[in-house]
Amino acid sequence: MSHLPETPTEKLELITRNLQEVIGAGLLRAKLEAQEVVRCYWGTAPTGRPHIGYFVPLTKIADFLNAGVEVTILLADIHAILDNLKAPVELVAYRVEYYRYILTCVFRTIGVPLHKLKFVVGSSYQLTAKYTMDNYRLCASVSEHDAKRAGAEVVKQVESPLLSGLLYPGLQALDEEYLGVDFQFGGVDQRKIFVLAEEVLPKLGYRKRAHLMNRMVPGLAGGKMSSSDPNSKIDFLDSAAEVKKKIKAAFCEEGNVEDNGILAFAQAVLFPISRLRLSIQASGVEDGGVKPFVLEDAPEGTVFSISRKQEWGGPLHYQTYEDLERDFADRKLHPGDLKAGVQEAIGNLLMPLHKLFAEDPEFREAERRAYPPPEQVKKAKKVRWS
Amino acid sequence: MSHLPETPTEKLELITRNLQEVIGAGLLRAKLEAQEVVRCYWGTAPTGRPHIGYFVPLTKIADFLNAGVEVTILLADIHAILDNLKAPVELVAYRVEYYRYILTCVFRTIGVPLHKLKFVVGSSYQLTAKYTMDNYRLCASVSEHDAKRAGAEVVKQVESPLLSGLLYPGLQALDEEYLGVDFQFGGVDQRKIFVLAEEVLPKLGYRKRAHLMNRMVPGLAGGKMSSSDPNSKIDFLDSAAEVKKKIKAAFCEEGNVEDNGILAFAQAVLFPISRLRLSIQASGVEDGGVKPFVLEDAPEGTVFSISRKQEWGGPLHYQTYEDLERDFADRKLHPGDLKAGVQEAIGNLLMPLHKLFAEDPEFREAERRAYPPPEQVKKAKKVRWS
Repeated sequence: MSHLPETPTEKLELITRNLQEVIGAGLLRAKLEAQEVVRCYWGTAPTGRPHIGYFVPLTKIADFLNAGVEVTILLADIHAILDNLKAPVELVAYRVEYYRYILTCVFRTIGVPLHKLKFVVGSSYQLTAKYTMDNYRLCASVSEHDAKRAGAEVVKQVESPLLSGLLYPGLQALDEEYLGVDFQFGGVDQRKIFVLAEEVLPKLGYRKRAHLMNRMVPGLAGGKMSSSDPNSKIDFLDSAAEVKKKIKAAFCEEGNVEDNGILAFAQAVLFPISRLRLSIQASGVEDGGVKPFVLEDAPEGTVFSISRKQEWGGPLHYQTYEDLERDFADRKLHPGDLKAGVQEAIGNLLMPLHKLFAEDPEFREAERRAYPPPEQVKKAKKVRWS
Repeated sequence: MSHLPETPTEKLELITRNLQEVIGAGLLRAKLEAQEVVRCYWGTAPTGRPHIGYFVPLTKIADFLNAGVEVTILLADIHAILDNLKAPVELVAYRVEYYRYILTCVFRTIGVPLHKLKFVVGSSYQLTAKYTMDNYRLCASVSEHDAKRAGAEVVKQVESPLLSGLLYPGLQALDEEYLGVDFQFGGVDQRKIFVLAEEVLPKLGYRKRAHLMNRMVPGLAGGKMSSSDPNSKIDFLDSAAEVKKKIKAAFCEEGNVEDNGILAFAQAVLFPISRLRLSIQASGVEDGGVKPFVLEDAPEGTVFSISRKQEWGGPLHYQTYEDLERDFADRKLHPGDLKAGVQEAIGNLLMPLHKLFAEDPEFREAERRAYPPPEQVKKAKKVRWS
């Protein structure tokens, strides 16, 4: 899309494109047709180090912003504690700060307008009397069984499950009301939580919201990209050498397009971002120095280029991801060349982040406090939340 | 005991007498020996109509007050909602008011000094940010399994258990910290909740408290006296005729002292209250018109008299409950005479309550709002808590 959408239909098209599932599109259409502002939220619990998998939802959020949706990023600190204390209580405030830094940088890097985006920290409203009372009312209308099932794909599953994991889905439902949104966005792994939210909000006297779900993008090792498995993901702050090493190790079999994290990342992140940057370039707006993933001498209409030596056939240029996938399936694009192209694009994506990190001592301090070396964690006095 | 206790040993004796179990007596002894004020709480969830079974804990609380303990009565409105919505959200505030009225009257009726007693409503502090955060921390350190087990004897057990029931025990633990008490008092049915509290408070950085447990007094029908089984209990506002009818129907087999609600009530309530009233009488303090359960011509030392026609052997006078129980076991005291004596004492206990109810229109209004006739509940618009 080379222009911003204007009609309700165009806006809805942009809001819902490339998603795996949409529940409640009618609700959004009605709002758009009434010329009302559409609001959404996407929540992230500040637990492990955010990795480049975060480009996937954030790239989709760029569509929302470009369609005029007001987007709230929920830094869900209480959820980080509820999910098996993935963020220890004494570190969670630091992790919130780090997530805020890195996600803001990523949005800048993607190249989207940020004036319709805001960050909200969960504990800023989730500890109010009204919210807590709503949570108790919710708990008095949701069975243990339903709460457990809702969280099964999201909350860490352990041998002796903690009470806190059962509260996790309910809070996510309440957040839709308290953040005043029309839809919640998340990966399709959130589906059961979203369905619970649709069931439970009307019981509490609130309206149910729409739910937009991204498909899951496999990690580089295949399977779900996870903050807790260092081999499955590339950290935002990984050096070029580390990125190279991890991409080299990624599963990417010649001609096999299934469960291929490299292809999936190209589809979900690299093509949309490059297309976005091309449209910014075309509009003549200040682009903050971010460049599309296109070689200088590429033909008109190219969205993604892969450098390749002349002896192997010279550079490749693609207008769509589907073209690239077809070439890979037909073995016209070799895994080594695909990896090299993706590695270069990731380097391009991460470069401004690394620059900001190098230049901003507060950003570095935020990182150091959020993820102190293990020995420091041990020594740190337990701070009581109050 | 005809005088108030003075030494730490005497005080501890009075605090712990007649209980089924005490955990943490050393903690109380240390406080008493250091001449520090001892504080405790007893919680009641304002659900069904309070019944005369409430005389049992309140009679024991009279001991605490006489030993100089500062007592908090927690009117646990949030718990009333968490326990399967036994008190509907829109009625719970009214039930709190009714419980406050009736329990205050009962304390006056028992004849204990009330200046060391205070009422606290749960929602007055259980919805604060600090408390809620502590609750989340607690939920992140208690397993579903442990929470379920802790509440098994207290929380209503239903086919598809609600999340709220799992939160119930944890809140009760936090209340010990937030009410600033040294011990929590309750029936021995609370034992598993108390043990959970002892385990969990130190994990949150708080000190563990002592736990004092009353034995369970069977209802008139035998088994646990319950607000929800109208046949097992006498309501505080039951007329003399209703009291007579319920006592007549009570299980009380000649010579059988097991599972006998009439004997149990005499032991747990009537003897202690009569003894208390005797000591008030002896001290010459204004007794507010409450009388011991002793006939006018009873011999010195009598604590409980039973009227009996001369043809059946004339009145009976007991100095201790054990004497009465022995007579009953030996069939020297007939069930009919025991019932008549207990019925008369209950009439004596309830008379001042009925008088206050008849004279105070606000008390009557509180009752009417707390337990509206069923058709009014149906029609009542659902009020959202906020």
